[in-house]
This record gives sequence, C-alpha cells and structure tokens, in this order.
Amino acid sequence: MTTMKTGELDNPQAESRPEDSETGVVFRGDGEPASPGLLVSRLAEVEAESGFDVDSYSLGGSVAKLEKYFAEALGKEAAIFMPTGTLANHLAIRSLCGVRRRAIVQEQSHLYQDSGDCVTQLSGINLVPLAKGKCCFDLEELKEAVHESTSGRVVNPIGAMMIESPVRRQQGQVVPFLEMKEMTDYCRGEGIHTHLDGARLYMMTAASGTAPQEYAALFDTVYVSLYKYFGAPFGAILAGDSKWTDGMYHTRRMFGGGLSHAYFAAALALQGAQGFEARFNQAMAKGRQLFDSLNALDRIRVTEFEHGSNIFPMTLDDALDHQAIVNCLRERDIFVYASEEGGSISSLSVNTTILRQSNDRILGAFRSALDGS
Amino acid sequence: MTTMKTGELDNPQAESRPEDSETGVVFRGDGEPASPGLLVSRLAEVEAESGFDVDSYSLGGSVAKLEKYFAEALGKEAAIFMPTGTLANHLAIRSLCGVRRRAIVQEQSHLYQDSGDCVTQLSGINLVPLAKGKCCFDLEELKEAVHESTSGRVVNPIGAMMIESPVRRQQGQVVPFLEMKEMTDYCRGEGIHTHLDGARLYMMTAASGTAPQEYAALFDTVYVSLYKYFGAPFGAILAGDSKWTDGMYHTRRMFGGGLSHAYFAAALALQGAQGFEARFNQAMAKGRQLFDSLNALDRIRVTEFEHGSNIFPMTLDDALDHQAIVNCLRERDIFVYASEEGGSISSLSVNTTILRQSNDRILGAFRSALDGS
Amino acid sequence: MTTMKTGELDNPQAESRPEDSETGVVFRGDGEPASPGLLVSRLAEVEAESGFDVDSYSLGGSVAKLEKYFAEALGKEAAIFMPTGTLANHLAIRSLCGVRRRAIVQEQSHLYQDSGDCVTQLSGINLVPLAKGKCCFDLEELKEAVHESTSGRVVNPIGAMMIESPVRRQQGQVVPFLEMKEMTDYCRGEGIHTHLDGARLYMMTAASGTAPQEYAALFDTVYVSLYKYFGAPFGAILAGDSKWTDGMYHTRRMFGGGLSHAYFAAALALQGAQGFEARFNQAMAKGRQLFDSLNALDRIRVTEFEHGSNIFPMTLDDALDHQAIVNCLRERDIFVYASEEGGSISSLSVNTTILRQSNDRILGAFRSALDGS
Amino acid sequence: MTTMKTGELDNPQAESRPEDSETGVVFRGDGEPASPGLLVSRLAEVEAESGFDVDSYSLGGSVAKLEKYFAEALGKEAAIFMPTGTLANHLAIRSLCGVRRRAIVQEQSHLYQDSGDCVTQLSGINLVPLAKGKCCFDLEELKEAVHESTSGRVVNPIGAMMIESPVRRQQGQVVPFLEMKEMTDYCRGEGIHTHLDGARLYMMTAASGTAPQEYAALFDTVYVSLYKYFGAPFGAILAGDSKWTDGMYHTRRMFGGGLSHAYFAAALALQGAQGFEARFNQAMAKGRQLFDSLNALDRIRVTEFEHGSNIFPMTLDDALDHQAIVNCLRERDIFVYASEEGGSISSLSVNTTILRQSNDRILGAFRSALDGS
Repeated sequence: MTTMKTGELDNPQAESRPEDSETGVVFRGDGEPASPGLLVSRLAEVEAESGFDVDSYSLGGSVAKLEKYFAEALGKEAAIFMPTGTLANHLAIRSLCGVRRRAIVQEQSHLYQDSGDCVTQLSGINLVPLAKGKCCFDLEELKEAVHESTSGRVVNPIGAMMIESPVRRQQGQVVPFLEMKEMTDYCRGEGIHTHLDGARLYMMTAASGTAPQEYAALFDTVYVSLYKYFGAPFGAILAGDSKWTDGMYHTRRMFGGGLSHAYFAAALALQGAQGFEARFNQAMAKGRQLFDSLNALDRIRVTEFEHGSNIFPMTLDDALDHQAIVNCLRERDIFVYASEEGGSISSLSVNTTILRQSNDRILGAFRSALDGS
Repeated sequence: MTTMKTGELDNPQAESRPEDSETGVVFRGDGEPASPGLLVSRLAEVEAESGFDVDSYSLGGSVAKLEKYFAEALGKEAAIFMPTGTLANHLAIRSLCGVRRRAIVQEQSHLYQDSGDCVTQLSGINLVPLAKGKCCFDLEELKEAVHESTSGRVVNPIGAMMIESPVRRQQGQVVPFLEMKEMTDYCRGEGIHTHLDGARLYMMTAASGTAPQEYAALFDTVYVSLYKYFGAPFGAILAGDSKWTDGMYHTRRMFGGGLSHAYFAAALALQGAQGFEARFNQAMAKGRQLFDSLNALDRIRVTEFEHGSNIFPMTLDDALDHQAIVNCLRERDIFVYASEEGGSISSLSVNTTILRQSNDRILGAFRSALDGS
Repeated sequence: MTTMKTGELDNPQAESRPEDSETGVVFRGDGEPASPGLLVSRLAEVEAESGFDVDSYSLGGSVAKLEKYFAEALGKEAAIFMPTGTLANHLAIRSLCGVRRRAIVQEQSHLYQDSGDCVTQLSGINLVPLAKGKCCFDLEELKEAVHESTSGRVVNPIGAMMIESPVRRQQGQVVPFLEMKEMTDYCRGEGIHTHLDGARLYMMTAASGTAPQEYAALFDTVYVSLYKYFGAPFGAILAGDSKWTDGMYHTRRMFGGGLSHAYFAAALALQGAQGFEARFNQAMAKGRQLFDSLNALDRIRVTEFEHGSNIFPMTLDDALDHQAIVNCLRERDIFVYASEEGGSISSLSVNTTILRQSNDRILGAFRSALDGS
Repeated sequence: MTTMKTGELDNPQAESRPEDSETGVVFRGDGEPASPGLLVSRLAEVEAESGFDVDSYSLGGSVAKLEKYFAEALGKEAAIFMPTGTLANHLAIRSLCGVRRRAIVQEQSHLYQDSGDCVTQLSGINLVPLAKGKCCFDLEELKEAVHESTSGRVVNPIGAMMIESPVRRQQGQVVPFLEMKEMTDYCRGEGIHTHLDGARLYMMTAASGTAPQEYAALFDTVYVSLYKYFGAPFGAILAGDSKWTDGMYHTRRMFGGGLSHAYFAAALALQGAQGFEARFNQAMAKGRQLFDSLNALDRIRVTEFEHGSNIFPMTLDDALDHQAIVNCLRERDIFVYASEEGGSISSLSVNTTILRQSNDRILGAFRSALDGS
C-alpha cells in the first residue's frame, strides 16, 4: 500500500500520460519519463545503430560492454551488472564484510529503510543505523560506533561502512566530499571497507562539480542506478576492484539475479550514458537560471539546500491555488506536482526534460499560472 | 567456465546465427531461438496489437495480467512473476517450509546442483538430496527420509518436498503422474508442503497428455519458466494458493528481484503463451511421425525414453561421419548438434520450430545427409 | 581484553580472595561471591539434603524440577533451562519472531551490545536499537519504530519487542512498571510479541515491590539468570507459555546448548532460589537504613536513582583518599571498589552479603575509614 | 521421544542404579557411569589435590589449563573448551569453511543426523551427505562430490571435509588411518580444510594403536569429547592451529556457549585424562582376552568388526533366554543390555569398568548365566 505510493513517487508512470510526451518539461524524477513507446523506439534505434550482443545469463555480450564502460567511467578495475540496486548494495556489503558481519549505514538510507532488511535476513550482517532522521553521520559518530562495536563483551567487528549520497529520503541532499573523504580515510586506517550507494551519483556530480571518479575513488565499491536516468528499464552497476567483484556473478545467480537475457537493458543504459554528464550539467545550469528568473516574480520562491543536488524547495504565496497552478502549467506541457499530504507544490526537481523548452517559455508559463490562480 | 558451457547448451545464442532464421528447424532447446531482431519485432507487434501496461517495480500493469493468466492456467488462486527460476524455486521452498527448515529434493535437481546452494545459504534450509544420479526418488525413499529426519537426537522436521519434472539433468525425463500423486498424497498426510519445479511443465504435458492444471493440482506451488519456450527474454511464474504467495512480492524485493520495469517481458510471455499448448502438441505429434519415418531408413534410429518428454535419443551407424551430417543438414536450415564430448549426435529435441518445414522436406534432408556421409 | 574486564566487573573472582570469606560484606554484584570451596560444600549439602536427579542432555531430573519451580514462580505454563542468558534471550526472540524478522530492543541492552550480534548473525533477525545511550525507549518511540518498519518500500514487520530491566549498562536502573505495561499492551494490540530480559528480575522486584509474576505477566516470555544471585555456576531460565517453549529443547540442542549433564547446576539454583526474595528484601531494607546512617556522616553521600534497583550512587568529599578507604574497609571484611578510570568509589551495590554484619559494625567501619583518610 | 531413547542409550543413567556401584563391570558406553555421588566425591578430591582455578565466562583458570593440556596431547597450537560436541563440530566447520559454504560429511555422522541441521540453519553451510547408510565415503566418492560441486551452473566451492571416526551410528567402526590420510592429503591439495569428529578418538587409538596425535596431524581441527570417558559432566575440546581457533571464544559466546563458570568441568576432565590412554589400552587387552575365553564356551560367540573400536558383536544360541542372562549377570555386578527391539543381547562394549573384576570372575559369571538359561 504505502509501498505502491512510494514506488509511484519515485518512478511515476501510467498509460499514455501527458508527461510522456517528448516535449514535456517534468519537474519530478531524475530522468526522462520512460513510456513503452519510447522503450520500443529506442530499442529499434540501438538495433539499427550499434546492434546488440546477446548475453548468456547476464554474462558477456552487451552486458560485458556496459560493465567495461562503467568500470572505466568510475575508475575501478571491474564492474558488474545487477538487476536491481537492492542487490547491488547487498552484494557489495556482503563482499566487503566477509566474515566480519557488522556494517554501518545511515538510518535514513534506502538500504536500511526500504530493502526489507535484506542484508540482515539473508547475509546475517547487522546494519548499525546511525544519524537517525538526519542526512548522514559525521566522523565523530562513526568513530563512536566503531568503538562501541569493539568494547562489548563479544566483539562485533565492523566489516563495512556505507554512505548513500544523494540521500533519497532527505530530498536528495548530499554528503559533502570532504566529509566523505575524512570518513573513508578513517575507515581505511581501521581496516573497514567502504561502499557508496551512488544510485544518483551523477546528480551529485552535477551539483558539486566533483567528478564521479573522484567520489568513487574514496570507496572500495560504488553502485550507480541504470534506470533512474540512463534510460534502462531496470538495472544497476556495481563497480570496484577485482578483489571485491571477482566471482560475484556466482553470488548474483545464487540470489536469483542472473537474468537469462539482459543485453537489451544493458545496451539501452550504455546508450543513455553517452554524453549524459554534459546534458545533465546543462540541465542544472539552465534550471538555476530559470529559478533566478522565477525568484524575480512575486509570490514564488525557489531556494536551494546547503548541500542539495537536483531537488529545489519551492514556496508559493499562501493565497495561491496550487491545484490550479498544476493544471495551468500542464496545459503548456509543464509538469509540477502537489504533494499527497497538504496538496501543495513544495519542490521542483531538475532533469534533462528541462532542455526541451526554452526558459522564456517556461517562465512565461509560470507567470500565467501564478496570475491565473 | 563450465558454467558458461552449461548456459550455452540450455539457451544457445550468438550473433546472427543461422538458426535464428525464421525458417530453421532447430532440434535443440524447448522454444524458438530468440534473436535480438525477433525481440524487437515482437515488442513492436505487441505494442501495436494489445499494448503494454506499465508496472511499478514488477507490480501491476502487464505483469499483473500475466500473473492472472497463469493463475488460471494452472488452477491456482494466485501467481507471481519472478525474474528467474532460481528465485521462484527458492521463494517457494522458503515459503512452504516456514520455520521447519528441511526440504527433500532430487539430487539431480537444478535447485540442488545448479543454484549455488541458495536455499541453504540464504534461507538456512537443509536440502536433503535423494535419488543420487537418478531421475527421481520414489515413495519408499521419501518415507525413509522423512523417518530419518524425525528419529535423530534433534528432530529436523521436513517442511517441504520438491519434484522437478521434466528433469533437465536427466535428458528431460519425467516423473510419472501416478508416482507424483502417491508422493504428494503422502506428504499432505504428513503435513509436508509440496512444490513442483515445472520449468518445462508444458513439455511434460505434451508428452503425457496430462494437463498442466492436473499436475499443478497435486502440489501447493508450481514454477513455470517464461523464457525457455514462451519467448520472454527472462522470467518465471510461481503459482499457488494465496496463503503461499501473499506478500511474496516483499520477499522478491528483499532478494533484489523487484525489477523496476518488467511489463515488456511479461507482455511477451503472455503473447507467447497464447495457444502454446496446441502448437506444442502439434509439434510433438509431427515429431513422432517424423521419427517413425526416420526409423524406416537404415543407419539411424530414434527411440524414446520410457518416461521421456521432448528429448529423443538417437543413434547413428558407427561408420557415419556425424560432423558431416550436421553440416549437410545445416545447409537445408535444419539444425542438429554433436555433443561436446565424443562429437556424436545423440539426441533430437522437439520444439515448435519443427512446424516450420514439412516432414517430407526434413526427411529428405536427413536422407541426403545420411547418404552423403 | 575489554571483554575480560567487563566479565570481571560482573562476576568478580580470583583464587582465595578475601571477599570469598563467608563473613565479608561485598558492595558489588547481585549475589554472594562463589568460590570453588563454596561450590563443593554446597553440592555436598544438596546431596545430603534433597539429593540429585540426573538429567539426560539437560532433559528431566533436577533440571525438570527447576523448570517446574520457575514456571510457577513466574506464572507461566512452562520454563526451560538454558546454559547462558545469551541463549535464553536469543531463543526467546527467535521463537517470538517466527517469520517476522525484525525486533525492537534498547540500544543499551546486553543483547544488542554484548552478545556478538547473535540474533542477527544466526537467526537473520534485525534488532532495531532504540533509545541510544539511554535506559529505555518510551511508548512514542516504540510507535514510531513500528510505523517506520511498515512504511518503507518493503515492509519489515516487527515480530518482537524486548525490554531489559534492570539495565546493566545503565547502573541497574529499571523501566517503571506502568511504562512497561503501556508498551506491552500496545504490542499486544499490534500482534507484536514481547520478551523481558529479567536477568536481574529479583533485584527489580526488591526495589519496586512489584512481584516477579506481575512483571512476567506483561510479557510473553521472560528470562532470569541463575548464576548472578541464585548460586548456580552457570545457567538461565526462560519462562513462557507452551506455545513459545514447546520443542525449544531441540533448538537449544541445535545451538549446542544441550549440556550432557546439568542436574547439579539446576539443583544449586533451586536451592538458592528458596526464600531468596525474602532474603533480598531484607538486604535492601537493611541497606537503605545503612545509607541513611551514612548520610548522617560528613563527607559521604549515598543517593538513589529515581528508578534504581540495587546500585546506589555514592559521592565522597574530594579531599578523601579513596584507595585508603578501600583498604581500611577491607581490613574489616567490607569490600567497596574504586572504578578503574578515575580510581574513585562511585557506587555501592546491595546484595545479601550485607546481612552478614550488623549495620552498626558496618557504619563503624565506614566512620573509621573516613576518619583515617 | 526417540530423542530421549537415543540419549539414554548413550549415557545410561538413573537414580542409584546398580551399575553406578564402583565395582560394576558395565558392557555399555565408553566410560565409567557417572553418578552424582561420584561427581561430588571427585570434585572434593580435585579440590584437595590440585585445587581449582576459577575461569571467567569459560576463559582462563582451569579451563585454560585443560586447553593447554589437550593442545599438546593432540599436537596442535591451540585448543578451546566447548560446552558440547555439537558446538565443537559446528564451530570447526564454520571456521574452516569461511565464505566457501559447502562441506562434505558422512550421511551417518552425528553432525548430519543428530545435530538439528545446526550448520545449515545457523551458518548457512550446505552439508553434503556422502556414503548413505555406510560407515564412510572413500577417496573416489570424495573426488566425485568435489567435482559435482564445481561443475554446476553456480559453483558451490567446498570449504571443508569432515570425518567422524569411530562412527557412533555404525557401532563404533573406524575409518582406517591410511584411507583417512589419502583423503586428507587430497583435500590439502585442493585447498579444502579438514575436521575430525573424534568424539571417541581415544577408543580408536586403543583399537588401532595409532596415537591421537597421529590422527590429529591429518586434520586441521579435531574434536574430542570430555564427558563420554574423561569423567566431566559435560564438555568438549576443539584443537587446531591458531588460525582456526583465534578469537573463537567470541563465536562460542555468540552461540550462547560461554558458560559463566566451567572450571570444575574442566578440572574433572583434566584429572580424568591423566593416564587414560594406558588404562583404556589395558581394558581393551583385558577385554580381548576375556572374549577369547568366552569363545571357548559353547553357545556364545564374540566377534570383532574388521575396522571396529570398542564395540564387539556377540551372538548367543537361539535357545537361550537373554533376559535371564541379563538378570543373572547383574547379580554378580556385571551389566549387559538387551536391545530394545528384539530383546536380545547383541554386543559388548569395552570400557575401563572391565578392570574392576578379574577375567576369571567375569568368565565364571558368564558360564553360570549360560548354564542357568
């Protein structure tokens, strides 16, 4: 029930929705909405252009090409395709922990909150949740947890530390690079392995200007989503040095994640990844310009988190009718969303759909919508 | 290494292979070889005809339609889509066992031999392997194992009994219906739940004439593959009464099997399942007629297992050059395969590609091939 | 290392230590120090008086008598002997959770901090630690955690809630009865089972006046230690209704806890439990009177936690030489302890050794010690 | 139910049974029956002679002395006390397997049949049972199982191989030393670690003349029981090089096996182990002489297994009344036992109680019993 709702928020879809049009500017999500039509046409496009290389149970073919591409893009020795981010995070932690079965995570992380306690139930690893209700823990909290784990009667040595950034449950806020570095340096010194849940790593890069490889270099392993913004129907990449990923395809298969064919998903992700960084940077720059213009208007204010990524808080004058604004913008192929509780529009997410219309056009649409409400 | 080989045997594929042609008769595998071109064209076909309903993380949409279809086809209250057969079998056993963590399986079963000890490693369930090197255990062996499990110092109550049939590692031989019934009746009396690994259930039906629902009715849960012969790129169905499947999508997700979009795979399987039984029956009948004709020739003999399905042992006169026969048939768009060890052609598998050419034409091709060798 | 230290604090022992004398008043621990000599003489006593009934692998005999005794004393249908409290807590949570593998515990609990993540590693149950650094969570925090567990993408239903009280890591402070009741009532309404880690239940009873059965009645299961104050060399009791304990001896054995003979430990605990409540109440009353007298002196102040049990904070004038006080009292067969860090005496624990000397004698000893420092 | 029966067979005990007398010759079990009286008197003896050194949660004191003794006796770097053999075997396999979670065992082994699937359920390790219904597998079967484990689709690398010898469920028959060596050599070459369940190792030594250290040298770890014949009320020793045992006390505690005090059990075992080998050799020699004399009588025949230890099959003339023989011998303080099924006496076990009476006396008793039946 709640499950479905959260799912919808993340990955909004329905049959022939207006926002699936190829001209819509959609202020939600990290990628371009994926309609079945788009999937079919993109597959035909890939077939015509680069062709597919068939894999056998997710080994070889286009899957191997994708893995090679991301290993390089993330500066790691190897990468392995996973059917879901849940599995990517899980197998990373499982591999990094080995027989030391305690790992530190953010209490607000997807892995702790939204993955069914998979790491605990299936790998017997205790995930210690730090920074309750906050974006992330800091070095002091980390040190304290490490101390706690070795000062009880039975030592519970910590095998791994994970950071999710941007943090989905905290409106995409990110952990600053220097804080990450401080913590991963500390872990290295303590023999604790580290994993980055970088599902939205490329959003973080666009916001901070720090390259994906620089983030990845801090951690032993890193996971990046393939379907949130690269246009695959599903899938994830887990990159790391060979010592972590070698033989992991056996584990993937053991977990039931060895899809008999995944070449088409891999090929779509590969295509979507080409030039993505540049496009997304462009989108972010364009978004910021747009928000400056919007802030010059009355009754609307778009702000920025101190450590935000592509989600921008927005406040509208109390007197305005939010639903009317939603409807008015929708007529102009611009999509904003009122929250389920309260019914107010409280943020705008930037993605590459913003490139589909000029800022003037979008600004004009907002102006009309505000006037008409 | 061996892994790859086995994979290839099961699901033979390579780029633009001759057997991917739409006129080839391929005496290997259970379905029609799936080339990328075919995938793309079938997707376009489905889009044009019935359309897709987008799912959210494998819930709803075309996935739900597929689940409904197979629940009915298998006579169960419910069915759930799984990304792989490995996961379908695992979650069935896990659900059926509950807290009684011992299950009886065939030593030759895919689950025991080829699934990485997933049930043991991840669910802590002891799979007791019976009938070493044979197709299946019988009622007596089953009773003995049940007795053993409750007569040790610490009782190890058996939660579930699984039968795989046809048995992949035993050339698709099947467990006779009456033996299955005897064993599932016994289990019901003992409070032991039962699961059918019916990955190739429809091959068994075509061979025995017993309907899928009749087999399924014996067991609490049943798994059927979606990619081996229904034309999906991947996927499996697990059907059973609601008490077993309710809430299982949470477990699927916990295992990392909740693909963000699976509608296209589901829609392809749904399309492939329409009329499949009739087509496959037709193929089997045609195959048997062909084999009768072949047996009228000299130097070739096609036989049948006492309890076989769609794999037929074949022996050729010692003097013949097997590789020459392979090559000769291939020129006529007919594909037989020499085993990796020995290099001899030792069996023919029937699937619906046999419908692509007339028996006369195929017979003629064999005659020429035998003559030319 | 730290392990050893914690162990020593809890269960202070060494060869022929002065505090092992039968006249010593020992202001540390919950029971009377157990020397080998005492063990041997008590065994001879039991043999002469009530005799032993031999058990077979912890089943039957004196073990069964002990179980019967504690089932009645705690108002439950059944009780089972366990070799350690670690196992008692673990098997309770494991049984109560069944297939719902999340449980709520205090972050400061022995089970979370000092048991090697056993529940997680061996039973795949996620222990959610609440009330970080505090004695216990309250109803609001509990409700919030229950809500969190069912509002993620994959529900993680909570099977059990545990309260440890008194809390060892919080100087024996207890959770007030009404707060416990509020929380266990709530859990019952939510179908969440409950366990009391009452290792020191009898200390709580002595402090609050609420009977062990009344505490036990709130919870589905309750664990009580046998060696901390009842005089067994090791062992624990887990009591609960039959639905939780039936067949648990199989699980105990599976975990390697089915000692081949435990009758002597059981018989010693049974003997030690006779009249214990009255004796300990007497000790507590005597302790309070003594502390009143001590507070009438200068330079010493014994206080009480708002919700304490048998540990009483003590402050001494800064000018005093703590080690000199320790030594001076020791000469009079009275034992107080300076903390390892700081070297100051900061609390007094009451146990039945206080009954060995008159309050006048003890008061006199303190007076001399203070004067001599 | 059956559980209790098996327990009784192994460890026969009841209140003030005639066989507990200190003059009884008991042809069952591996050690001298342990009555409570004997326990108490032996404890007093140890206290008077060597004294006890108190341990803290099974660390240090007499426990450490015992560990040191057995490390040397078995020629290993280290040894660790365990509360039960179940835990000793489990933690050995767990440690040896590491992350390679498959182990080979005898189908008839105690660990596979009588330990509640502990290794599977709690450590997720698949125990592959070989040599169904037989004493042990041989090198060929072992090689085949290793091959099977690496030739499936997902490799299931084998981490450990265990041999139980003598085999309790096969009347104490032993695996010949050279066969053991062949198999452990092979394993070493394959990187598979090895464990000896030598619960009754000293019986095997007495039968074969091969020293405990020689057996132990073949394996990475070895377990020896402390209560079956060394006179401890419970307990086991696990010996191995430090790489296997280091830090294992944490795991022991995690499993709930860290008894708060075990010094007395350790001290009794240590006392019982002194000179045991010589005494048991003497008993075996005396037993063989006795059986020769018995075989000179009519109507009775004592034989020997080709690879037996201390259990000798016996057949009596059909016309004899077995129960009358049991009763008649019992009057002379000699104890033989009729099997529960059939009611016939079918074997004699030799232990050190045979040293309590002269062979002439025992022979005379048998002669009278045969004559009177």
